[in-house]
Amino acid sequence: MRDEITRTDHKYVEVAERIETQIENEVLKVGDKLLSVRALSKEQGISLSTAFQAYYALESKGLIEARPQSGYYVKHSKRFMRDLPRPSEPLDEALPVTIDDMINSVYVNLNSGSLLNFSMAAPAIELLPVAKLNKAVAHALRESETSCLHYEHIQGSVALRKQIGRQAFNWGGTPGENDIVVTAGCVEALSLCIKAVTRPGDAVAIESPTYFAIFQLMQSYGLKVVEIPTDPVTGIDIDHLEQAITRFDIKACLVVNNFNNPLGSCMPDDRKERLVHMLALKEIPLIEDDIYGELYFGKTRPKTCKTFDKKGLVLHCGSFSKSLAPGYRIGWTIPGIYKDAVLRLKRMHTVSTNSLAQAAVANFLENGRYELHLRHLRKALHTQSLRYFQAVCEHFPEDTLITRPQGGFTLWIELNKKINAFKLHKRALKHNIGIAPGQIFSSQGTYENCFRISYGAPWSPAIEGGIKTLAKIIHDWR
Amino acid sequence: MRDEITRTDHKYVEVAERIETQIENEVLKVGDKLLSVRALSKEQGISLSTAFQAYYALESKGLIEARPQSGYYVKHSKRFMRDLPRPSEPLDEALPVTIDDMINSVYVNLNSGSLLNFSMAAPAIELLPVAKLNKAVAHALRESETSCLHYEHIQGSVALRKQIGRQAFNWGGTPGENDIVVTAGCVEALSLCIKAVTRPGDAVAIESPTYFAIFQLMQSYGLKVVEIPTDPVTGIDIDHLEQAITRFDIKACLVVNNFNNPLGSCMPDDRKERLVHMLALKEIPLIEDDIYGELYFGKTRPKTCKTFDKKGLVLHCGSFSKSLAPGYRIGWTIPGIYKDAVLRLKRMHTVSTNSLAQAAVANFLENGRYELHLRHLRKALHTQSLRYFQAVCEHFPEDTLITRPQGGFTLWIELNKKINAFKLHKRALKHNIGIAPGQIFSSQGTYENCFRISYGAPWSPAIEGGIKTLAKIIHDWR
Repeated sequence: MRDEITRTDHKYVEVAERIETQIENEVLKVGDKLLSVRALSKEQGISLSTAFQAYYALESKGLIEARPQSGYYVKHSKRFMRDLPRPSEPLDEALPVTIDDMINSVYVNLNSGSLLNFSMAAPAIELLPVAKLNKAVAHALRESETSCLHYEHIQGSVALRKQIGRQAFNWGGTPGENDIVVTAGCVEALSLCIKAVTRPGDAVAIESPTYFAIFQLMQSYGLKVVEIPTDPVTGIDIDHLEQAITRFDIKACLVVNNFNNPLGSCMPDDRKERLVHMLALKEIPLIEDDIYGELYFGKTRPKTCKTFDKKGLVLHCGSFSKSLAPGYRIGWTIPGIYKDAVLRLKRMHTVSTNSLAQAAVANFLENGRYELHLRHLRKALHTQSLRYFQAVCEHFPEDTLITRPQGGFTLWIELNKKINAFKLHKRALKHNIGIAPGQIFSSQGTYENCFRISYGAPWSPAIEGGIKTLAKIIHDWR
Repeated sequence: MRDEITRTDHKYVEVAERIETQIENEVLKVGDKLLSVRALSKEQGISLSTAFQAYYALESKGLIEARPQSGYYVKHSKRFMRDLPRPSEPLDEALPVTIDDMINSVYVNLNSGSLLNFSMAAPAIELLPVAKLNKAVAHALRESETSCLHYEHIQGSVALRKQIGRQAFNWGGTPGENDIVVTAGCVEALSLCIKAVTRPGDAVAIESPTYFAIFQLMQSYGLKVVEIPTDPVTGIDIDHLEQAITRFDIKACLVVNNFNNPLGSCMPDDRKERLVHMLALKEIPLIEDDIYGELYFGKTRPKTCKTFDKKGLVLHCGSFSKSLAPGYRIGWTIPGIYKDAVLRLKRMHTVSTNSLAQAAVANFLENGRYELHLRHLRKALHTQSLRYFQAVCEHFPEDTLITRPQGGFTLWIELNKKINAFKLHKRALKHNIGIAPGQIFSSQGTYENCFRISYGAPWSPAIEGGIKTLAKIIHDWR
């Protein structure tokens, strides 16, 4: 059904956006009554059903509420939101990594069905085009001479690489199929790229906080990490990075520029260009994890560092795991001048990637279904991000700081310093609630009073109950 | 169709086997005329069609031939076969590995459709149960609440691990589902296991010759390899290994005991027990690549080292890639006391394995289809091994030495010392024929006059033409 909605839905969206702007600018204030649906319809010269749709959209974002027998009221204004967390201030050191045991403790119960899981940065299944993907699987089996039982090219299916190349057009990329290497998810892409550009003992610069799986990879390859201060809106501090490169003899850089996990920050495109330029002058490879890039809440897809890469020093990594089919484990990298090295490592460690999943994803994209699906997914995630955000604002203590993600899946929450997030995780687990404590997002034991929640699951009474329970644990902290 | 044949085919098999024994013992000699079908039927008290089936089975193995208007004649005796290659005598050194470029040259054209590919040790698609696997995929999608879009357990699907545990019964194993880790093919299993038990700079003992992908893994982890002499019938030389362990401070051992690639050797089970015992006394972990173990040509499945593992020091690795579904990339390891280390590495480098492929394979096995399929696959491979073997005997120069594989996919051929196998590979490629030259099976540049061919593809005029062309290139060598 969802996929059938077309772009003729413009009118209600436009009306809703104008009302949203009025709320943001406090032309309409919290508690104000809105026009009746009938009055709105008359005033705007739109049908009753379009007027209803506009209010419904605002309601689903949590900006207005319907009061029985009375009408619609403004419920929420961005002016009332909590402060942002401060830009991070990690220690200025190159450190070996040792947060492994904590991560294992957080993720050991991941697949327990009863867990209310705020710790997985992934979309709920109901947000995915299940029926159409199943059709794509059936198609792929029918169209393949071998029913996808053959070993695929080590570099990946040609049909899929073509589609990944086409998709790159959205961020200003024009890779040929020969520039792309398909991998078993984005983590394999990152693993191969890190290994391709470093040797044990090298120092690598990363954002702080950083997705913990990246620390684990660094640890596994015997690398040191240098954590660079990162702003929850604009991303890594380029000046600081430039100084760190000299001081720590940094050999590579790894960033999640678009909707950083956990911060949700998005580096503005002109800063990306500056970052690429600065690193190119020093001949330092930049691994770019763009796994969330398509999941933007703004008007356009943000560009990538690869967009500005003239020397082939950017190793772009992406995946369909966060936007289409987590269980298929299909990712890719566009590794520039490191392609041969990446391919050689791929051959050594996992050979080719699953043929059937590659063919199914290629089929889905060939039929133009991905763009349509992404539009719906972005809307849903945006709405969910606002709902979760507001619930945290409403229930958590006054001194809580919260990020405003511009895309992706995650809220980063900074609590009063007396709260230890790893203990919070342990206590929440007793209530069957999973969160990702701040400690696992740094090698320095910082972010002790921070944690990450994912808003990948649609808003529901159970989710609301979970957030209230978390709030209660924090309120009752001792 | 093939899967419908049942075990009532015993009678003709039994008669054929008795005739085969007579040929082996030269009770029947090459050129001898066999009884007519009618006479055989009378003599043995079997139906005419059973007698026909028996001769047909012997003919398909290339042991007898039908001469028009005349009857069946003995065509081939094992007594007339070429000598075996000698047990290997690798240099007694711990060496870093550098055969990478040669391997890339051999495997760059792997997916070219026009190539007559003797270089892939894998089954032809027509030997696989394509239709039933497709049904298993459809079943898996229907039965899964998420249509297999969820991230699977990092350790692998519970249903699949149960089936792998059941299958292990064949070699005397009784692993629980919790002892097994599912991987993206056997290469990932080996990669994780090697990494789990070694550190860069360590020395690892392997067979000589050894499957080149294993060298590449060792190289990638910065390990040294010590190549141990290996017999083309009974496998690695345990006494030599024991001495090498002390001299080179060996930290781990990796063997392909069952139908070694490329030798086709199968270590007798009592030697396996001795090997495990010897290594256990020294607390040295043994990585066992059992990917070909189910593809035996004899009466029973050979045991594994894991069968005799009391201390949990054996890391058993297997896969469905060679026996069921190459493109699905589903393998596993039973890593004993190293399970936590292996799981941690799996989480770091590829997270979970494709959910759909795991569910499809589990479904296929649950329905008892795997055993039936394996019976047919073993027969087909045995027949193919004999056909290829005989063609090489027939067409190659007199001084050619050839292995007699007891299972698996590969013949290892030793040519006159004047022939350089890497040059042979280059020349064969001009005729669109792919072989695996001996040089890539050692880090010492030995086996220069050896090469490996796979008999995974059913016998055909094209295959015969390919072998004749290879023979001609060798005969015309200058």
